[in-house]
Amino acid sequence: MDDRQTKDLIEIGRNFMKSPDWTGSMTSDQDKKLPQPALYHEAKKGSEVIALPRDFEKLKLNENLFELLRSRKSRRIYSEEALSLLELSFLLWSAQGIKGKRGEKYATLRTVPSGGARHGFECYVDVKYVVGLEPGIYHYLSGGHALEFTGTQSADERLQSVEGQKWASRAAAIFYFTAVPYRFEWRYSIFAHRIALVDLGHVGENLYLAAEALKLGTCGIGAFSQSICDRVLKLDGKNEFTVYVQPVGKVRDREESEESAFYSFVTEEGL
Amino acid sequence: MDDRQTKDLIEIGRNFMKSPDWTGSMTSDQDKKLPQPALYHEAKKGSEVIALPRDFEKLKLNENLFELLRSRKSRRIYSEEALSLLELSFLLWSAQGIKGKRGEKYATLRTVPSGGARHGFECYVDVKYVVGLEPGIYHYLSGGHALEFTGTQSADERLQSVEGQKWASRAAAIFYFTAVPYRFEWRYSIFAHRIALVDLGHVGENLYLAAEALKLGTCGIGAFSQSICDRVLKLDGKNEFTVYVQPVGKVRDREESEESAFYSFVTEEGL
Repeated sequence: MDDRQTKDLIEIGRNFMKSPDWTGSMTSDQDKKLPQPALYHEAKKGSEVIALPRDFEKLKLNENLFELLRSRKSRRIYSEEALSLLELSFLLWSAQGIKGKRGEKYATLRTVPSGGARHGFECYVDVKYVVGLEPGIYHYLSGGHALEFTGTQSADERLQSVEGQKWASRAAAIFYFTAVPYRFEWRYSIFAHRIALVDLGHVGENLYLAAEALKLGTCGIGAFSQSICDRVLKLDGKNEFTVYVQPVGKVRDREESEESAFYSFVTEEGL
Repeated sequence: MDDRQTKDLIEIGRNFMKSPDWTGSMTSDQDKKLPQPALYHEAKKGSEVIALPRDFEKLKLNENLFELLRSRKSRRIYSEEALSLLELSFLLWSAQGIKGKRGEKYATLRTVPSGGARHGFECYVDVKYVVGLEPGIYHYLSGGHALEFTGTQSADERLQSVEGQKWASRAAAIFYFTAVPYRFEWRYSIFAHRIALVDLGHVGENLYLAAEALKLGTCGIGAFSQSICDRVLKLDGKNEFTVYVQPVGKVRDREESEESAFYSFVTEEGL
């Protein structure tokens, strides 16, 4: 790619980050009174539905927000110790949990804010070490706070899905968030995608903080393989596609020196 | 705009949400060993710098993350009661506070995660009701956890900046987050902008939760006026521009009925 092309693409990217002209330039399907899409994916026909525990008061979440924000950092060195099902349940609830509805089927109210309460995401978890769950990929059924098994991926696919980042493939559970873009587009049409990405950050940050509250580690991954992730999650890549990947695991006692190895270039290059 | 144009733009938007092909298609300025941009804006020459208090342990932040996530919701009805300077300080620290550095000037480590620790944001606050601060617009000096006064906006500009949303203009303080895109682009080049928007959501969610922890209310605004915001914040709109707006205020006791008026269309239209 030459410098001119790079410059043009950077210009396009910057413009994408800006607020569009909202005054009269867009008529959404909501404006046209078209039927709105389902608020979340239901379980597939014949799926075995695994209920998730909700007794979160049993978790020892003693830290307040000041302490959580003070201690949170990227954590990439995980042990092979398993998460409990209650811990996994709390992570899913924190990221995408439904607390109520507005109207009969107009909107879900969740643990995370979303522009116009559109919540156009789904969550899948590749489970490696969770007490009581067979390893495999599960879809989070936000409507009933439950899981359904969807399949498996090989160790090689798992590694490729995170662009060869070995630390990530070692996590007890890898969270794959997907976008169902029409849920946003129904209301925001051509302006949907900027809003959706900011909302995705809301989701990711809740998962960061929930992991920290459980003394687990996570680190968001922007560089994932779109094609591998979409394939292993069985998405069409058009009406639903992967948008964020977050591995979560138990943090080892002596993680500090290994964690700092990720930044050795800073010292080596005298930055 | 005709249906074909809408469809094309939606296709472009969806593609923007996807992970690009990271293998060899991009050479960043970091790869080229070009000097990196400053990690944050310093105070302008001659600015009076107002130190912010840091004794956050004095704040009554009793709730743990479960309780915070359970109670958080969009809150748009504010009283005219003033925030304390310590409350404002905690909100700023939660959204953009610096906890340390990596290398001499390679990266800041903050209360919020950012891809490659680029943290390409600045924060400005339009102060209306904060004890000990003259009303006006202040720039958050993340490097020294302090404020500098930058100017004022009229009541009309304030309202226009949030596209005429009166509830927002009534807040005790309006947070305007801006992007300094080259901080991301230096490392991620043409792939920077998707990452930056997700990071922006991390920032916004921390502000949501910090407000909730202080029993304050906020609601993120995607539909703001780019031109008015950039003008009142004195930005060039190119190397720095507004990307997110969050009003924060004290929540009134009897907010519920007024808050629900925002959703009366759901009942009226039988949704």
